[in-house]
Amino acid sequence: MSFRNVEVRKKANVYHGGKVTSRTVITPDGEMKTLGVMLPGVYRFSTEAPERIDITQGHCRVKRAEDSGWTDYQEGETFSIPGHSHFEIEVVDFLDYVCHFD
Amino acid sequence: MSFRNVEVRKKANVYHGGKVTSRTVITPDGEMKTLGVMLPGVYRFSTEAPERIDITQGHCRVKRAEDSGWTDYQEGETFSIPGHSHFEIEVVDFLDYVCHFD
Repeated sequence: MSFRNVEVRKKANVYHGGKVTSRTVITPDGEMKTLGVMLPGVYRFSTEAPERIDITQGHCRVKRAEDSGWTDYQEGETFSIPGHSHFEIEVVDFLDYVCHFD
Repeated sequence: MSFRNVEVRKKANVYHGGKVTSRTVITPDGEMKTLGVMLPGVYRFSTEAPERIDITQGHCRVKRAEDSGWTDYQEGETFSIPGHSHFEIEVVDFLDYVCHFD
């Protein structure tokens, strides 16, 4: 599966010492998405816009700001994070994802 | 700087346990390129087509099959590898690169 007729920014987005990286993609109708990977580990991210993350490969556990516990997500599943919030993510198996900013 | 009107494959290419990953990009005239990142470490790669690698961020040292020693490459520099060959690369500082297949 591919994204077609998009713009891809040459410079990678780099977080957590390179253990989390992504590429910014702009669709024909101006929507920004990122295609990223995360190595195993536990990370915390803040959000500005609401985010919807599709798991292309891998396995992770997610704890949103409003959650009391962790939820598992596998390849083919999606999780959403409200805007102006944060979430913790434990990457169990190398993660390949697409992040949509809603 | 960006690549425009390209196709980007959703699934990442993953090597060396996730320490080297890339995204395949197809240009409007059908040329394939990869946008990749490498975490610090020493890696060996084989080539089929000749490869030309532009360093977007970072610092590495490269030893081609025909080289007796290592050559340093920094951000903004490019190195080339013949086809049907191999090379070793020591990533000194997190590497962000574009690979062109000539």
